[in-house]
Amino acid sequence: MGFFITFEGIEGCGKSTQVRLAAERLSRAGHEVVVTREPGGCPIADAIRAILLDARNSAMVPMTELLLYAAARAQHIAEVVEPALASGKIVLCDRFTDSTLTYQGFGRKLDRELIARLNALAAGSIKPDMTLLFDCPVETGLARAMARINANSAAREERFEQESLLFHERIRDGFLSLAATEPSRFVVLDGSRSIGEIETMVTESILMRLPAATARR
Amino acid sequence: MGFFITFEGIEGCGKSTQVRLAAERLSRAGHEVVVTREPGGCPIADAIRAILLDARNSAMVPMTELLLYAAARAQHIAEVVEPALASGKIVLCDRFTDSTLTYQGFGRKLDRELIARLNALAAGSIKPDMTLLFDCPVETGLARAMARINANSAAREERFEQESLLFHERIRDGFLSLAATEPSRFVVLDGSRSIGEIETMVTESILMRLPAATARR
Repeated sequence: MGFFITFEGIEGCGKSTQVRLAAERLSRAGHEVVVTREPGGCPIADAIRAILLDARNSAMVPMTELLLYAAARAQHIAEVVEPALASGKIVLCDRFTDSTLTYQGFGRKLDRELIARLNALAAGSIKPDMTLLFDCPVETGLARAMARINANSAAREERFEQESLLFHERIRDGFLSLAATEPSRFVVLDGSRSIGEIETMVTESILMRLPAATARR
Repeated sequence: MGFFITFEGIEGCGKSTQVRLAAERLSRAGHEVVVTREPGGCPIADAIRAILLDARNSAMVPMTELLLYAAARAQHIAEVVEPALASGKIVLCDRFTDSTLTYQGFGRKLDRELIARLNALAAGSIKPDMTLLFDCPVETGLARAMARINANSAAREERFEQESLLFHERIRDGFLSLAATEPSRFVVLDGSRSIGEIETMVTESILMRLPAATARR
């Protein structure tokens, strides 16, 4: 009934800024919008997120990481995404199953078939109606992510930001190859352009695909 | 190379006391013993345990719970159990895969085939060489568990202790039916007998099965 849009891309690709801007635009246009993110989005999933991102947890094995993402997703879907979609709302989600496929599959090199099965177990019948992929060079993304960390001295460096450049290159390639296999779901946008330019492209591509039935206030 | 013994049963069946007593006996006999428990056993799994047992997390859906147990297990196996067994030690573990099968399968009624697959994913090739099941009436077990909580006013009531009597009856039946399908792995002991009597039976049944090659100090 609702419309589920996921925002994907490497660290610093600009997706979180665009989630916020899109939510403002859609709300002003009278749509009921729920903004959320993975991992997290509800208290139990946020507690799991804290374990996943804690830089002190460097001993975490890839299988634990994968299962924690799935656990957080199962809770987030049940508590937040499914009820919002059932009441006809637009759900904007910062990262979803494609991030798990790229980070754990292309990045950590876990079996992608297994990841897809766990994604399905956690998400049930919920699939994104549309996925916006913000693509940009790894150097651009990481420079932005580092600037954000430096601007906020309270922000601890997180586990994924400690990974090598090569790791992030595999993530970027992974996202692009997922987009290539599902061109009808993915919209690939140039994340190295200005925030305003990207915002315009995001709004246009969402409004073009939004079903007429989506709930308005 | 080592020997992996799991201790299973309902709340208040006496297994944790017996883990401690068996560890003392085996250590005195010169064996190298590692005592651990699930969920938990290492810092990352302990952090997951805290989420699982927190009584405030009553909104947790069964699939999240199942995936969190699997995540904690994957980490515990990789960090603690596998290295200890590889170096020839005896590992005594308070709860393991059979608890997941009974609590999430017989208790929460999740698909047992799925639970078995997740158990295998988390535990890899590691299986208990021997499982001690401490069986007692649900009323006996819960009365002991409640006495323990009352004795320690700092102990919050945990999520599983809030479940109905019927839930715990299903857990007890679940353990007994698992034991019936694998009689060569399980030793079923009467958990309503005295601590000393049970200790004697535990020690005898372990020493009878312990391979000669198990490492000694």
